[in-house]
Amino acid sequence: MATARNPSEKLAALSRCMVFEALSQDMREELVAHAYSKGYAAGDLIFAAGDGGQTMMAVLKGTVRIGLVTATARDLVLTDCHQGDVFGEVALFDGGPRSADARATTNVELLVLERRDVLAVLERHPAGALRLLELLCARLRRSDERMIELAFLDISTRLALALLRILESPNHAFAKRPVRLSLSQTELANMIGSARENVNRCLKSWEKREIVDLKDGWLIITDEKSLRLLADRE
Amino acid sequence: MATARNPSEKLAALSRCMVFEALSQDMREELVAHAYSKGYAAGDLIFAAGDGGQTMMAVLKGTVRIGLVTATARDLVLTDCHQGDVFGEVALFDGGPRSADARATTNVELLVLERRDVLAVLERHPAGALRLLELLCARLRRSDERMIELAFLDISTRLALALLRILESPNHAFAKRPVRLSLSQTELANMIGSARENVNRCLKSWEKREIVDLKDGWLIITDEKSLRLLADRE
Repeated sequence: MATARNPSEKLAALSRCMVFEALSQDMREELVAHAYSKGYAAGDLIFAAGDGGQTMMAVLKGTVRIGLVTATARDLVLTDCHQGDVFGEVALFDGGPRSADARATTNVELLVLERRDVLAVLERHPAGALRLLELLCARLRRSDERMIELAFLDISTRLALALLRILESPNHAFAKRPVRLSLSQTELANMIGSARENVNRCLKSWEKREIVDLKDGWLIITDEKSLRLLADRE
Repeated sequence: MATARNPSEKLAALSRCMVFEALSQDMREELVAHAYSKGYAAGDLIFAAGDGGQTMMAVLKGTVRIGLVTATARDLVLTDCHQGDVFGEVALFDGGPRSADARATTNVELLVLERRDVLAVLERHPAGALRLLELLCARLRRSDERMIELAFLDISTRLALALLRILESPNHAFAKRPVRLSLSQTELANMIGSARENVNRCLKSWEKREIVDLKDGWLIITDEKSLRLLADRE
């Protein structure tokens, strides 16, 4: 569903994106001139791994989950994108197919930038290209960190890290404590590359130690300090 | 140890690097004007994770291993860089510390490019920046692929994939068959994020099935076709 936004709204939205923050007003105006906004309902597939990708998207509203379904039909959540985050830039820059699925987990509104427009602007504004290089480097660091977690850390540490990441995301960082999450154990398992049974065992043991509370389908984080200890972050 | 190379030798070396191939002759000359070559002996640490990083390097000769030692003193090999590959670009572009160790696994010769020179050239040649964006995207795809391998594949599939990657690297792609590798089981375990004992068990079972031969410390790949089947690549 295409949604109408006037240029100044689009421009304001773009300035809230970390990637575009460092760009000049001129460059943002050029980018926005060709960008359009698009809405998706919760659950909609935005693109699938393997699709051709000629666009990148900035999240104006809502949450988009980037993930993969593997040959063995198991899911892996790579990251959740919130307002101000961009995604889809990998396929846009290297011209290859989408490397993962993007799915709306809430109702979302995106600002869509086309490859030809982005490249044309970057060719005239090298500072923008350097800023994007920085962004990709940050993504590479995150990706390498997660690889190390998967290779070396046990389930409990990985689960504690994943929950802390959620608590520190824009959706929850400033929310009232204790935070109540409506995440299924399967979703959590997909985030840490493990099986639901293992997540269940871990959460049950944390519940006994009063670190979390499992109630009416909610996962309530009652003791963030212990979670940081478990994640080896204190 | 700094080694002397004249400008035309440095220029020729740079043109052999995939990243710089797409750049104009002008731009390569500018880059080379400030670059210098540097040699390391097998085993030397080139940089360590956490070091400040103001340079990127192109491999002129030899092999450099990018890897990490984790808090639990286990190693993870991220990648091996051969002639024409570049490394160190992440810290150069985002100004952060080195995200991994780089160690010479043979005697190596590198061409070193300084941050200020690279950025100055890219600001004048946006096409170069776009080419580097492509390179980083390719690295991100590889990194995500490895993450998925670690999360979902069993030891045997991961080991088969790691061996195929070695067989397809420039060092071995055109070598006489069967290829003889002088890799320890610990090294292989570090490549796939597992323990030496698991690698040993897997290789012993493959030896019985005549896929590999373990002799005098060599790992001889006698049946590449079966290896591809094990890696789910046929």
